[in-house]
Amino acid sequence: MTVTTPGGFRASGLAAGIKASGKKDLALVVNDGPSQVAAGVLTANRVHAAPVKWTRQVLSDGTLKAVVLNSGGANACTGPAGFQDTHATAEKVAGVLGIGAAEVAVCSTGLIGELLPMPKILAGIDGCAAALSADGGADAAEAIMTTDTLAKNTVQTGAGYLIGGMAKGAGMLAPGLATMLVVLTTDADVDHPTAQAALARACRLTFDRLDSDGAMSTNDTVLLLASGASGVSPDPAEFAALLTAACHDLSQQLLGDAEGATKEVAIEVRNAATEDDAVTVGRSIARNNLVKTALFGNDPNWGRILAAVGTTDAVFDADELDVAVNGVWICLKGAAAADRSAVDLKGRDVSITVDLHAGNATATIWTNDLSHAYVHENSAYSS
Amino acid sequence: MTVTTPGGFRASGLAAGIKASGKKDLALVVNDGPSQVAAGVLTANRVHAAPVKWTRQVLSDGTLKAVVLNSGGANACTGPAGFQDTHATAEKVAGVLGIGAAEVAVCSTGLIGELLPMPKILAGIDGCAAALSADGGADAAEAIMTTDTLAKNTVQTGAGYLIGGMAKGAGMLAPGLATMLVVLTTDADVDHPTAQAALARACRLTFDRLDSDGAMSTNDTVLLLASGASGVSPDPAEFAALLTAACHDLSQQLLGDAEGATKEVAIEVRNAATEDDAVTVGRSIARNNLVKTALFGNDPNWGRILAAVGTTDAVFDADELDVAVNGVWICLKGAAAADRSAVDLKGRDVSITVDLHAGNATATIWTNDLSHAYVHENSAYSS
Repeated sequence: MTVTTPGGFRASGLAAGIKASGKKDLALVVNDGPSQVAAGVLTANRVHAAPVKWTRQVLSDGTLKAVVLNSGGANACTGPAGFQDTHATAEKVAGVLGIGAAEVAVCSTGLIGELLPMPKILAGIDGCAAALSADGGADAAEAIMTTDTLAKNTVQTGAGYLIGGMAKGAGMLAPGLATMLVVLTTDADVDHPTAQAALARACRLTFDRLDSDGAMSTNDTVLLLASGASGVSPDPAEFAALLTAACHDLSQQLLGDAEGATKEVAIEVRNAATEDDAVTVGRSIARNNLVKTALFGNDPNWGRILAAVGTTDAVFDADELDVAVNGVWICLKGAAAADRSAVDLKGRDVSITVDLHAGNATATIWTNDLSHAYVHENSAYSS
Repeated sequence: MTVTTPGGFRASGLAAGIKASGKKDLALVVNDGPSQVAAGVLTANRVHAAPVKWTRQVLSDGTLKAVVLNSGGANACTGPAGFQDTHATAEKVAGVLGIGAAEVAVCSTGLIGELLPMPKILAGIDGCAAALSADGGADAAEAIMTTDTLAKNTVQTGAGYLIGGMAKGAGMLAPGLATMLVVLTTDADVDHPTAQAALARACRLTFDRLDSDGAMSTNDTVLLLASGASGVSPDPAEFAALLTAACHDLSQQLLGDAEGATKEVAIEVRNAATEDDAVTVGRSIARNNLVKTALFGNDPNWGRILAAVGTTDAVFDADELDVAVNGVWICLKGAAAADRSAVDLKGRDVSITVDLHAGNATATIWTNDLSHAYVHENSAYSS
């Protein structure tokens, strides 16, 4: 159940020798149509990689025929030479597929600041083209992994059409997207405005609310390719909801595989004056290292949660704030309520609920705890 | 060389039984005049402790005769009962000193969300009053320590007058002040506007630029008491510069004692369009957990630094950014330059220099690395 499950797509993934480990590191996804509608959401980081610059350009006409993705190198902060390499990669894919380079998106992930081994990538593209298959989605998903421990795939079933997807990302997960590459495919027949609007909404509600470590990547890319192979033109709202479900499924897989985490934390902010306020408060809690270390220590430290809420400009009265951890309301009206010993934090899933008593908007932000293993992985691994 | 080194001050510190450890936990600083000018800067956190609410009120007339400080409990998020306790504490100090409660500031630090053991505090105030001495500054500085491993004191010498100071704080160090309590004393004869302006400037350039872990406290308080005992009315600019030197000294002691840190990191942002831009960029780097874990791992990971710069709205061109670590320019024009292996990160002091090439403003932000010991201390200690 992968990006090649919907009709009209072929994919492949193989070891091109970019990774020293010899693991798969190059993937190709091709949309055989009949439609080639595409949409994309790319990192908001102003320092962004050459493939992000390229992909933003080629997405401008709302169509794509292929996406080539490599792990083992981000091609970020590589100057004009890095951009030339991305261009050459797209040209090579275009050559072997008999299409135009402007129809090829490029995604890269890995260490920042180093040029890619282009001879290996160009040779690998020949191999990827030869290996393209309607069963190749699983290989492609495997080839984009970096510190991920599991490949991440999804398929959602609509009324006569399918949405498939794959994702990579296990750290640097933050708004304006996580460090992640995501390719979504559908055999629905949707036009570009419908696809782009649905993807923007889905990202806003899922990937953008995943804030594992507050660090925004240079390479985040989410692409949606629509082949129209099913012949079905879905209701735009239904399509958007199904696409959001696909992105939610992938984002929860990213959360579950975050580097070194021992907890998956859902922070629900209730009764905010606006949805923006709810997101702001949730994100402030998600990014607070003292909250995150307390959770690692199984400590329902609501004082640190309130202190994080207090740093925001959201509408609230500090003497009206309520906080529950795993359903136990340990803070009511800004002061201690239920005994904190009633909170059981031994499990992996944690829910934090904050009631702002300021309106009726709600949002959930997902994060992880801050663990010894996070420090270990990110002090030992250059990315 | 403490808060009692300048003329006109007495202080004391003792174990009132608030801390289970039996260590000193209650301090009193008294300004015997002839002047009682005071200034203060308090936490910008909208969730702030009862003593912060109280102290903000009593500072409104620009004078203070005494400050009582306790460790072992923050009296934050304690509702109306907590505020009554703060009020009762000030009333008790006023009673034993024969002054008014509105002339007494109160500072608390420790666990959030629990009421203070008032009988111990009230009895302790009797003891503190009895122990007041012109040599009592060192005891006072010891009594405000929480996870601090060292007491923090300073004295700066002006033209005929002195500035003394004490500080506590070892985590939750972030802008809008660190989790810290600071009392500064001077025997200069300064009026309230001069004192307040000098303190605001000093905090902006020192404590506000210390961002150990991005977490803003509920209890931060910086107080300046001026006795006028020297009879010297200094030039306001000279006084402000000396006060900034005192705050810088204390802030560097806080940085050096940050929980679990193995590095003290100075992030200098050069050639920014504005000082605000320089601070914003420095703070974004200081708060980036991937930068901080890389430093813990002795990895001069300039890609993560650039990625942190890229998340800001400061004026810069991503293709013009230069980055040096410990003086080695490993990134020029947004791409790799000197070999990263030339950077020696084995020492405790680290300098990061970022040149934005966007103007001529400069600022330095100080932070620490993110270590296993930070995770350990903050997952095991409720604060």
